[in-house]
Amino acid sequence: MTKFDVLTVGNAIVDIIARCEDEFLVDNGIIKSAMNLIDAERAELLYSRMGPALEASGGSAGNTAAGVASLGGKAAYFGKISNDQLGEIFTHDIRAQGVHFETKPLPSTPPTARSMIFVTPDGERSMNTYLGACVELGPEDVEADVVAEAKVTYFEGYLWDPPRAKDAIRECARIAHENGREVSMTLSDSFCVHRYRAEFLDLMRSGTVDIVFANRAEALALYETEDFELALANIARDCKLAAVTMSEEGSIIVRGDERVRVEATHIHSVVDTTGAGDLYAAGFLFGYTTGRSLADCGRLGSLAAGIVIEQVGPRPMVSLSAAAKNAGLL
Amino acid sequence: MTKFDVLTVGNAIVDIIARCEDEFLVDNGIIKSAMNLIDAERAELLYSRMGPALEASGGSAGNTAAGVASLGGKAAYFGKISNDQLGEIFTHDIRAQGVHFETKPLPSTPPTARSMIFVTPDGERSMNTYLGACVELGPEDVEADVVAEAKVTYFEGYLWDPPRAKDAIRECARIAHENGREVSMTLSDSFCVHRYRAEFLDLMRSGTVDIVFANRAEALALYETEDFELALANIARDCKLAAVTMSEEGSIIVRGDERVRVEATHIHSVVDTTGAGDLYAAGFLFGYTTGRSLADCGRLGSLAAGIVIEQVGPRPMVSLSAAAKNAGLL
Repeated sequence: MTKFDVLTVGNAIVDIIARCEDEFLVDNGIIKSAMNLIDAERAELLYSRMGPALEASGGSAGNTAAGVASLGGKAAYFGKISNDQLGEIFTHDIRAQGVHFETKPLPSTPPTARSMIFVTPDGERSMNTYLGACVELGPEDVEADVVAEAKVTYFEGYLWDPPRAKDAIRECARIAHENGREVSMTLSDSFCVHRYRAEFLDLMRSGTVDIVFANRAEALALYETEDFELALANIARDCKLAAVTMSEEGSIIVRGDERVRVEATHIHSVVDTTGAGDLYAAGFLFGYTTGRSLADCGRLGSLAAGIVIEQVGPRPMVSLSAAAKNAGLL
Repeated sequence: MTKFDVLTVGNAIVDIIARCEDEFLVDNGIIKSAMNLIDAERAELLYSRMGPALEASGGSAGNTAAGVASLGGKAAYFGKISNDQLGEIFTHDIRAQGVHFETKPLPSTPPTARSMIFVTPDGERSMNTYLGACVELGPEDVEADVVAEAKVTYFEGYLWDPPRAKDAIRECARIAHENGREVSMTLSDSFCVHRYRAEFLDLMRSGTVDIVFANRAEALALYETEDFELALANIARDCKLAAVTMSEEGSIIVRGDERVRVEATHIHSVVDTTGAGDLYAAGFLFGYTTGRSLADCGRLGSLAAGIVIEQVGPRPMVSLSAAAKNAGLL
């Protein structure tokens, strides 16, 4: 028996969440629905313009680890925080969810990363991320025994933004494969794909990554096409397994010639899409590492994503395990 | 024209909010629905046992100031934070709501206060407050010009817990009355009333406080009686104006021989009662300082309280002004 079902690696971030009108995004040059990278100075400026906010632990891969744990899976996480109050909040929340998290914090500056997330009336989230302490994540943060004992090691494409995290990921992939495990990534964001397309394709084609998560825009961006069928055919060729999400149209899972179509769950009211993709990956990977069919992996992903869309904040505030049991999926 | 409608003074606190079952309160010796004062050591212990949480700026009087501003009133706030990340969050949120907040922060420790709020399935909140920087609030923090220019200065009974805040309040009351303004307080919590009954009664009977807010339990505790009618008669005698809230039964406003009964608004689903009393006071004081009838003051209070009960967190995430217009109250 392995010690962990899923290890996730990502930028450890505390979300600062406020609602705004679409005009605010335009007036402040924020690309809607995207992850906008910002420096400390712009972080200060945007915060001064932001309305009253709520704070919640976030970070794409952190949300995924929390989702796996909420489903009853054994999860671990690597990510860099600083020894400050936001770092304390991040650490508390992920451990309180039952996730193994022991990455050594920075002693002081740069501070723990924060993302100012503006949620427009349509529920779409537009993120403005100051990476802070995340820029220090490196190979020295890889807990080799955790990687060796995790069925799947999953990481964010966002990790190509800080300077040395990619070295940590390559080291994780090496250890994982040496131990007969699998490696998975999310393409994270279509702008992120534009920044690192060649490297992401190389990760897939070299077999460094086995399982890829993407949404439609990211899949199209990866292959620089408007033809979704072509993108799907390419992604099926370039990795062993891929799950491509399509918002309210559900998801398509591709493995070689096999294709599985999964419906989205019915959403009563789109409150805040933050964490939707992360939670889809959580549900899928929980299903995958516990030996379920691809269709059920996708259904668990849809369920978890649907729940997080109907609340404020990126990690589910209800037990996903209970929700999945109610839905007949566990 | 005065510069401020309402100045509020209180313990400046960031809330850390998580759901729990009732058993958790029992197992951890937390008095349900009350404000439990804790020290740094117990704060650490309880946090280690708390589930994943959300953070939001809170503090009773801070919530009231935010509510007044959300209704379109001119609000100011005095409260002590430290120069740390939670203090930055507190400052941002209250200023972003349009509230004047210039109390000088402590340079370092003790840290900004936090309250761990456990919300049980019935929506009741049980608070565990570590006062941190709040213990340093004193008369030197009184901005005399703000007090002089505020129609009503409102403070929390909770301010009798830290050592020197009461001196700040007495100074505020002196300045306010010298300038023909009124002074208001909330009794805050029935346990708080038990701690400071004699002093609270003296504040009222000496005319230091003109307007009192209480809930039923606090009014009964103040007069050490189980007879609500008697408590109402006493409170009417001991201050110029009082508003006593009774949860789903609405509120009673007493002024001399005058009594006004106000219904509670219909609540679809009690999500989290945190801030309900604070927002009642906000609605009432906004109405009062803008010259409305006592009945309309109470209705504005009920409206604001009802809105905050249907969300997570102590300050309304929607515009109270818009909600009051929709309800025909503005």
